[in-house]
Amino acid sequence: MKNEVFTLGIDYGTNSVRALVVRCSDGKEFGTSVVNYPSGAQGILLDPQDHHLARQHPGDYLFGLERSVRGALAQARKQRGFDPARVVGIGVDTTGSSPIPVDRNNVPLALSPKWRKNLHAQCWLWKDHTSWREAARITELAAQHRPQYIAKCGNTYSSEWFWSKIWHCRTVAPSVFHAAYSWVELADWIPSVLAGVRDPLQIRRGICCAGHKALYSDEWGGLPDKEFLALLHPDLAALRDALYAKAHDATVAAGALCREWADRLGLPAGIPIAIGEMDVHYGAIGSGVAEGTLVKVIGTSTCDCGVVSAEKSVPDIPGICGIVPGAILPGHYGIEAGQSAVGDIFKWWVEVVCGGDAATHAEFTRQAARLRPGQSGLLALDWHNGNRTILVDPMLTGLLVGCTLHTTKAEIYRALIEATAFGARAILERIKEYGVRVDRIVCAGGIAEKNPLLMQIYADVTGCTMLVAGSSQACALGGAVAAAVLARAHPDFPAAQRRMTSLKRVAYRPRAAARKTYDQLYALYRQLHDSLGGRNRSADLSRVMKDLLALKG
Amino acid sequence: MKNEVFTLGIDYGTNSVRALVVRCSDGKEFGTSVVNYPSGAQGILLDPQDHHLARQHPGDYLFGLERSVRGALAQARKQRGFDPARVVGIGVDTTGSSPIPVDRNNVPLALSPKWRKNLHAQCWLWKDHTSWREAARITELAAQHRPQYIAKCGNTYSSEWFWSKIWHCRTVAPSVFHAAYSWVELADWIPSVLAGVRDPLQIRRGICCAGHKALYSDEWGGLPDKEFLALLHPDLAALRDALYAKAHDATVAAGALCREWADRLGLPAGIPIAIGEMDVHYGAIGSGVAEGTLVKVIGTSTCDCGVVSAEKSVPDIPGICGIVPGAILPGHYGIEAGQSAVGDIFKWWVEVVCGGDAATHAEFTRQAARLRPGQSGLLALDWHNGNRTILVDPMLTGLLVGCTLHTTKAEIYRALIEATAFGARAILERIKEYGVRVDRIVCAGGIAEKNPLLMQIYADVTGCTMLVAGSSQACALGGAVAAAVLARAHPDFPAAQRRMTSLKRVAYRPRAAARKTYDQLYALYRQLHDSLGGRNRSADLSRVMKDLLALKG
Repeated sequence: MKNEVFTLGIDYGTNSVRALVVRCSDGKEFGTSVVNYPSGAQGILLDPQDHHLARQHPGDYLFGLERSVRGALAQARKQRGFDPARVVGIGVDTTGSSPIPVDRNNVPLALSPKWRKNLHAQCWLWKDHTSWREAARITELAAQHRPQYIAKCGNTYSSEWFWSKIWHCRTVAPSVFHAAYSWVELADWIPSVLAGVRDPLQIRRGICCAGHKALYSDEWGGLPDKEFLALLHPDLAALRDALYAKAHDATVAAGALCREWADRLGLPAGIPIAIGEMDVHYGAIGSGVAEGTLVKVIGTSTCDCGVVSAEKSVPDIPGICGIVPGAILPGHYGIEAGQSAVGDIFKWWVEVVCGGDAATHAEFTRQAARLRPGQSGLLALDWHNGNRTILVDPMLTGLLVGCTLHTTKAEIYRALIEATAFGARAILERIKEYGVRVDRIVCAGGIAEKNPLLMQIYADVTGCTMLVAGSSQACALGGAVAAAVLARAHPDFPAAQRRMTSLKRVAYRPRAAARKTYDQLYALYRQLHDSLGGRNRSADLSRVMKDLLALKG
Repeated sequence: MKNEVFTLGIDYGTNSVRALVVRCSDGKEFGTSVVNYPSGAQGILLDPQDHHLARQHPGDYLFGLERSVRGALAQARKQRGFDPARVVGIGVDTTGSSPIPVDRNNVPLALSPKWRKNLHAQCWLWKDHTSWREAARITELAAQHRPQYIAKCGNTYSSEWFWSKIWHCRTVAPSVFHAAYSWVELADWIPSVLAGVRDPLQIRRGICCAGHKALYSDEWGGLPDKEFLALLHPDLAALRDALYAKAHDATVAAGALCREWADRLGLPAGIPIAIGEMDVHYGAIGSGVAEGTLVKVIGTSTCDCGVVSAEKSVPDIPGICGIVPGAILPGHYGIEAGQSAVGDIFKWWVEVVCGGDAATHAEFTRQAARLRPGQSGLLALDWHNGNRTILVDPMLTGLLVGCTLHTTKAEIYRALIEATAFGARAILERIKEYGVRVDRIVCAGGIAEKNPLLMQIYADVTGCTMLVAGSSQACALGGAVAAAVLARAHPDFPAAQRRMTSLKRVAYRPRAAARKTYDQLYALYRQLHDSLGGRNRSADLSRVMKDLLALKG
C-alpha cells in the first residue's frame, strides 16, 4: 500500500463539473465531488429570443474546479492509504466544441468587467446552434475549394463547431471578436490554467478538438490554410496566427501543475497534466474502448466513440462527425458520432411539457415499461436539438406521429425513448456499413446506469447486447487513466484500461419478438427520417400512419 | 301575448341532451335544460383495448329526454306568457350516424336484461370507428358495382356510417345482429318514441341520415338494392326489408306526440313531431343556413353545412361526405363536410396529456394568444380521430412537427387549434373549388362562442370573416324552427329562420399580416396532409422543418 499512486480526473459536463480521485493500480475510486455551475439556467446562459443560443460563464469553470477537486480530495482523505502527495497526475475532459474568446494573457474576456454580461464573450457551449448559417456556408465553401477538409466529418461542417461559432461571433459581435486575442477550446483552456500558461500561443492543444471540430489535420499542415479562411472572413485568416500550429494526442502532457493551482487545490506542484480531450473521448477510454468495442456515452446528448488501429485505413463515412488519428486513443483513428439530444428530450417532455420532476420520470418509466413495442401506435423523430449523425443538420426538429384522442404522456415518453434508439441504430448501421467493426457496445453515463427500460429498448432496437461501463464517472475515469499513463503508472493505454476500467455485471440482450416489431418501426422511422431529413425527395409516406395503427393492434 | 305559441327543440349531443323552449314569434328562449348521460365515460361506453370503439346506452336517451324536457318547461314556466299548453310542436336532432339495434317492438336490444351489458347491442355512436375494414370494403365494392352510390359522398364510404357499423356488428357479434329486428338511427328513434311507434316498419325516417349515411337516394329507389347488399353479406340484404322504403325531409311530421309521453313530459298530446335530423343539420337551420351562408358547428368535432337550391345542379365533390336533396333545408341540396375531432383534440391535450381542467384551457389560451402566427415553429395534423373531409380516412392519426427542447404546452395547444383551422380551410377550398358559393360563414357551438382566439385564428387562416350564431343552442333551436314550420307558426323555413334565428354582434375579420404567415403554414400543412394522407406518393418534405424554423424567426 505504501507505493500506491493516484490520479485525478476532472470532467466538465453540460451542467456541472466533477472531480474523481482514482487509485492507479485497480481503478478504485477514492473520492469524488460534483459542483453545479452557478450561472444561468442549470449552468447555461440562454436567450429567450433564440433557442439556438447556449453559452456558459468561464468563471463557473474556475469556481467548479477548485470546489470539485478539494471536495474529491477531502473525501479521498477519509480512505485508508490515500495522501494528496501521492496524486501523480491530472486528466481533464470537457464538453466540446466549446470555444472561449481569451485575451493576450489567456484570460477569458468574460472575466473582465467590460464583457462580463455579454453573451458573445462567454464560452460558446457545444450545443449552441446560433451559427447554423455559417456552418452551412463553411460546408459549401469547403465542398468547392477544400473537399478534403470536410471529407472526414461526413461532408458537413456543424454549427456546433469551432469555426462556425467564431465566424458567427465576428458577424454578430465584432467588438467581442476584436477584443479577443485568441480562441481556446474549454478542453485546452482548463489544462492551460492548471499549468499556469499565460500566453495563448503557449497552450498545448489537443488533437481531439482540433481534429474533430477545427478541421485540423497533419495531412494539410494543421488548421485550414489562410486562403481558405479568408473566404470565410479575412479576420479569420488573421486569427489563424493566434491559434496553434500543432495539436497533440494523449501521449504528451499539456504541462505541469503550476504552484498557484497546486496551492489552491492542495496537490503537489509539477505533476503532469494530460492533454485535454472531449468528455466522451476520455469517457470512451474510461469505458474500455478498443477496436471492436463501441462506447456510447448516453446523457443529455449521446456520443458514440469507436477506434480503428492507425495501421489500417478508414474510409470517409458520410454523415459521421469525425475520423481523426489519435483523437480518442493514441495509435488509433478516433471515430465519433452522436445524437444532439437524448436525455434532453426526455427532460423536455417530463419537465417542460408535463411540468414534472424526477418522480414523474420514474412514474412515466413504470407506465412505459408496461407497453409492448408498437402498442402506443406512436413514432417520433429525435431531432428536438437537430440531428448530428447521420444527417448533420441542426435545422431539423422533433416530430411525433400516431396520436389519437387516447394517447397518454407515458406512451409519448416511451415513443421518445424509442426515437433515440432508432437514431442510435441509424448511426450503428452507417459505421458498420463502412467496415468499422462493432463486436460489442459499452454504454456509459447516467442514463445507461439508471434506465433499464431505455437500455432494453436500445438492445431490442439495435439487435446488439448493451453492456454498461463499470464506473459511473467514466469520463473523469478516462482522464485519470490518461494521467496514469502519462505518470508512467502503466506502460500504455491498453494496460491502464485493463487495470483501471471495468464493466457492470448487467447486460441487456435483444429479445426476438421485440426486435421483429422494432425492425418494422425502424423501417417507418427511416421513411420519415429520410423524407423530412431531405435524403428522399419523392417519399411515399401513405403507409406510415396505417402501419403504426396495425402494429398497435 | 295571448296568442303566443312555442315549440320545443331537443338536441342529443355526444355527452348530453338539451331541451329548449322557444317562442315562435321571435325565437326568444324561454327555458332550457341540459342532462348529462349517466353511463360510461362522459356518456360514452369505451373499450380500453380498442380506441376505435364508442357506444352509448339507449336508456340514457330516455332518461335524458324526460329530465331535460321537464327541466326546460319548468324554467319556461317562470317566464311571463308561457304555458305548456301553448307548445305546438317538437323537433329533435341527434348525433349521427348513430344506429341502434331494435327488436320487433321498436325497443333497443340494450334495454333488455339479456343484452344490457353487451357493447354491440348499444347505440353505435357516430364517432365509433371499429368498422373501418367494412367501410373500406364497401367503398371498394361500390366503386366496382355501384359507383353512383358513393359518388355523392366523396367516393369513400365511412366507418362512421350506417352500413359499415351494422356489417361490423354482423361480423363481430352475430348473436346481437340476429337478435335485432331492425336498426334505427337515433335521430329517427327519438321521434318514433315520442310518437309512440311500436313497429320499426312504421317509423318515419329522415332523409338526412338516410341520404348522408345509408346510401339512400330516390334516384336508385331508396336504400341500396339487395343484390349489392348481398355482396356485403346476405344477412344485410335480408335486413333491407326491415328498414324503410322512403325517407322524408323536414316538411313532413315524424308523428304526433303520444299520450304516454305527453303525460311524462307535461305537454299536450297530438302536437306534431318534426322529422329527426342530425344535430348539425338542425344546427345549420338554427344558425340561418341559406344559399351562400356556410354554417360551421364547432364542438367536439366540427360539421360544415351548406345548401344549394334544389333547382340547380350540384356536381359530386371528391371527399365531401354527402350531397343530399332535402337533407338540411327542404328545397335545397344539403352539403355536409366535417372534421372528426376539434374540441376533442384540445381536450385530449389539456386533460389527457397535461392533466388539466377548464382553468388550464383558459391559461393555455391566454399564453397561446400572446404568440404570433408561426412563432411556435410548430405544425400539427388534426387527425387524432381520423380525417372525415377531405380525405375520408379514419385510419389517420395526429402529427406534430417542429418540436425543440423549448417547446411549451401552450405552444402545442395553439398549434392544435391552428391544425383544426387548416383542416377547416381544406374543406372550404374544396367546396368552393366545385362551385358552392360561400359568401359568409356562421359558426355555432360552444367553442365558437367561448374561444375568440380560435375564431380569430380561423378567420386568419381561411381569410373569411367568422360570424357567430345568435343562439348558444343552435341545434335545438333548429329543431324548434322545424317544429314551428310544421305547426304552421310560420309559412316556410326562410320565414321562420328570419324571425327565430339571429347573429351575435361580434365578427372575427381576417388580419392581413396573419393571413400571409398562415398562407405559408397552410402550404406546409398541405405538404404533410397530402403526403401522410396518401394523396401525394412522391412528396418532397425536405423544406418543412426548415421553413417552420424560418417562420419562427
